[in-house]
Amino acid sequence: MPNGSYGKLLHRIREIGLLQSTAALLHWDQQTMMPPRGIEHRSRQLAQLARMSHELFISVEIADLLAQCEAESNLISDPLSESAVNVRETRREYDRAVKVPASLVQELSQTTALAEGEWIGARKESDFPRFRPWLEKIVGLLRQKAECLGHPKGGEAWDALAEGFEPDCTARKVEAMFSPLRARLADLVGEIVGRGAIRAQQLQSLDLPIEINKKFVRAMAQRIGVDFSRGRLDESAHPFCGGSHCHDVRMTTRFTEADQIEPLFSTLHESGHAMYEQGLKEEHLGTPMGESISLAIHESQSRMWENFVGRTREFWIWCLPQMKKAFGASLNGITEDDAYADINPVRPGLIRVSADEATYNLHIIIRFEMERSLMGGDLPVSDLPGVWNEKYRDILSVDVPDEAQGCLQDIHWAGGAIGYFPTYALGNLYAAQIFEQAEAEIPDLRRGFSQGRFSDLKEWLNERIHSHGKRFSADALCQRLTEKPLSIEPFMNHLENKLRPLHGL
Amino acid sequence: MPNGSYGKLLHRIREIGLLQSTAALLHWDQQTMMPPRGIEHRSRQLAQLARMSHELFISVEIADLLAQCEAESNLISDPLSESAVNVRETRREYDRAVKVPASLVQELSQTTALAEGEWIGARKESDFPRFRPWLEKIVGLLRQKAECLGHPKGGEAWDALAEGFEPDCTARKVEAMFSPLRARLADLVGEIVGRGAIRAQQLQSLDLPIEINKKFVRAMAQRIGVDFSRGRLDESAHPFCGGSHCHDVRMTTRFTEADQIEPLFSTLHESGHAMYEQGLKEEHLGTPMGESISLAIHESQSRMWENFVGRTREFWIWCLPQMKKAFGASLNGITEDDAYADINPVRPGLIRVSADEATYNLHIIIRFEMERSLMGGDLPVSDLPGVWNEKYRDILSVDVPDEAQGCLQDIHWAGGAIGYFPTYALGNLYAAQIFEQAEAEIPDLRRGFSQGRFSDLKEWLNERIHSHGKRFSADALCQRLTEKPLSIEPFMNHLENKLRPLHGL
Repeated sequence: MPNGSYGKLLHRIREIGLLQSTAALLHWDQQTMMPPRGIEHRSRQLAQLARMSHELFISVEIADLLAQCEAESNLISDPLSESAVNVRETRREYDRAVKVPASLVQELSQTTALAEGEWIGARKESDFPRFRPWLEKIVGLLRQKAECLGHPKGGEAWDALAEGFEPDCTARKVEAMFSPLRARLADLVGEIVGRGAIRAQQLQSLDLPIEINKKFVRAMAQRIGVDFSRGRLDESAHPFCGGSHCHDVRMTTRFTEADQIEPLFSTLHESGHAMYEQGLKEEHLGTPMGESISLAIHESQSRMWENFVGRTREFWIWCLPQMKKAFGASLNGITEDDAYADINPVRPGLIRVSADEATYNLHIIIRFEMERSLMGGDLPVSDLPGVWNEKYRDILSVDVPDEAQGCLQDIHWAGGAIGYFPTYALGNLYAAQIFEQAEAEIPDLRRGFSQGRFSDLKEWLNERIHSHGKRFSADALCQRLTEKPLSIEPFMNHLENKLRPLHGL
Repeated sequence: MPNGSYGKLLHRIREIGLLQSTAALLHWDQQTMMPPRGIEHRSRQLAQLARMSHELFISVEIADLLAQCEAESNLISDPLSESAVNVRETRREYDRAVKVPASLVQELSQTTALAEGEWIGARKESDFPRFRPWLEKIVGLLRQKAECLGHPKGGEAWDALAEGFEPDCTARKVEAMFSPLRARLADLVGEIVGRGAIRAQQLQSLDLPIEINKKFVRAMAQRIGVDFSRGRLDESAHPFCGGSHCHDVRMTTRFTEADQIEPLFSTLHESGHAMYEQGLKEEHLGTPMGESISLAIHESQSRMWENFVGRTREFWIWCLPQMKKAFGASLNGITEDDAYADINPVRPGLIRVSADEATYNLHIIIRFEMERSLMGGDLPVSDLPGVWNEKYRDILSVDVPDEAQGCLQDIHWAGGAIGYFPTYALGNLYAAQIFEQAEAEIPDLRRGFSQGRFSDLKEWLNERIHSHGKRFSADALCQRLTEKPLSIEPFMNHLENKLRPLHGL
């Protein structure tokens, strides 16, 4: 045990981080490796670890150590110092954690682990009634949790949950960002769709041998900068990036008949997450200085590699020949222009993870409105499919044929993650604003992509974002990097500059 | 929390079992999935779980509950009742655990997790000096552990460790079994080798496509009775069967160029272990009544399926056509006689896991003698390779060309498992004696194999052995099933009856 309050505090929170990293591995295993009938025992394992971590964290010892650290001015006088950041962020987490009883933590963990299993089955059979009681239980538990957590005056229950994913996020702030975004996107999408010039996507409908595709997407991840001596790529129903720490980062993708190119973009996406995790500093492992800022900033990294790198013409100048080498004759006749157009469609659809860049945020806006109502109590779970389908008709002009392609498509609510979805859209906005800055600072950034050079961007992100852990808040990071608060302008400029000429506007 | 001392005791030990099942998953992951650089963090995760389990187990509360249960005659009056067994076995474990300080438990766990990583590297490069300091540290820690545990008068340090794998096992008892076994085996092997009629093994040297072989061995495991809705089969450097409980059992095998048929036998072997685990009763999960008796009994199950099923002529009457269907033309011209002879060679060699049935136990006897000396202090770790090679020359008449094929071939000592090896040979003896009984009781047992029917044997084992958990000791089980104490006769009869005619004696 080290000396001094700060050393002791770090020792304790590292212990808890270690236990949580074990839970992260169990979560990954559940999604990728676990035999189907292992689910019930797994839910008990996870609930035990959640309860133990929670109990260790809300101990009197941690409360005392935190108070002692806060009283030592040399630790906290420089608010950006390692010690000040670790104390500040531990305080933030502690004040949240101490409000939630361990029994509720355990019940939520066990319920959501089981519900994730049920969700897989319900989605497969497009059977919402099978999943409904689980979601009702989860919403009930989350409303209890929100009540324990409370929220500042003028806020709402949803805010209390969102805070756990995105510090300082409120429904009101999200709404202020989403209202103009929704209007601008509706206009742009309307204009493009109105032209009626829908092209067949050649790339997506190729018949790529799955074994070669697996190797290809792994090679792409490695090429853009994922370190496989510290990571893996597997398959799961819903692609994600998990694992337990910067030396063991586990991405997944999925291979479907419907879209042969999705695995590449899903891998580029998860690679962005993986490079953030791998870019955290080992010396800070298990402390806030060794953790990512927020989910929106995490998502900015994944969306940057997926969309701001992977969907540029320059990337495809390099990537298309790589694909032709890997897959041979099946790509004959596909030009760089074809590929660039194929991967930048605007086509309102049903599935969020397959949505194009212009319609993606509209999927998020729908989910945000619904989960806000679920938490506010004005949307009963039983009405979910109907309201879902209605919103898809209104906002995206698509008819939902079944629940698997409707309100059962995402795992998030099954996992208890209400308040999470908006971080995806915020991530898109951050990605645009940060990438704009990277382009201004890194010479020949895009030309590098066309030569298969990605290390400039990766290193810039490592240095400017990843290595700082939680030193800056999301707002502060944005201001510091770009000298502006987050706005929708860089994102809308990016979309309009790319999509208008491509779609003949 | 349930009422009554017994209910409370079960609740507590189930909690500990749950935590240990998490550690088991992490061990499996380390051998199969973990990226190379994850090892250091993994060793910390495992050490933490080991320390937590240990501390939870040696608590005053458990001591009190145990004492209360032992004072309630209705719980323990029938020594074979569920409650009596759970109390008896928890007492046995408790009395051992309480003697070892948590710091030593943690240090052993962390050291062995790291040493297993080093062993993989050292074996790959056949570099004993790289591994030596790790083994020295492990032997030192294990001697400390043995000293904490102590042993009855007339015993030795090795006994204290072996007890953890095989209750009531002592070096003296093992020696009494191994001395005549060694002599009988040396005679039999000598006679067969002396005839000089070594046949080329056609099966082993086939060039089987690895992807088909993977599917084939999995199908064989399923056919003999492994339930893959509650299990997996993966690959690892050293095949094993792990996982966390009867609904999540994880086997591994390995595919090498050198022997194309080894994966089948290694899979049959691990399937025997898996079926034991899957045959434990779910209602007893996390308690002694839901755990296997001992490692020797566990090994009796794996060796039974590998050797007493998989190496019979009847099995190959059924299996060879299955192989021909799976692999096609490459098996043309191989007859049942060829196959039966190919899989029953007698050929002294270097590698334990590839050893034939006649020489296998000699590999174990060598390891037993060496680890007894390591623990007794009369064999320094630095002398290990020399003594190893000498014993292989004396006992098996083979020259060890390098350490990868010598003293670095097995993971056990790296994992801290000194006292473990003899359970393999005892497992062979139990397998023979139990199988002899199964043949006497199950009509047409072997004929069933020739028709691909294995459920008779599996169900007999489920009912007679698996479902009882730790109800009987190994000795008591043997006596109860076969009405005789364990002896080498059934094993030697099995070998001589099979090998003498096959090798022209």
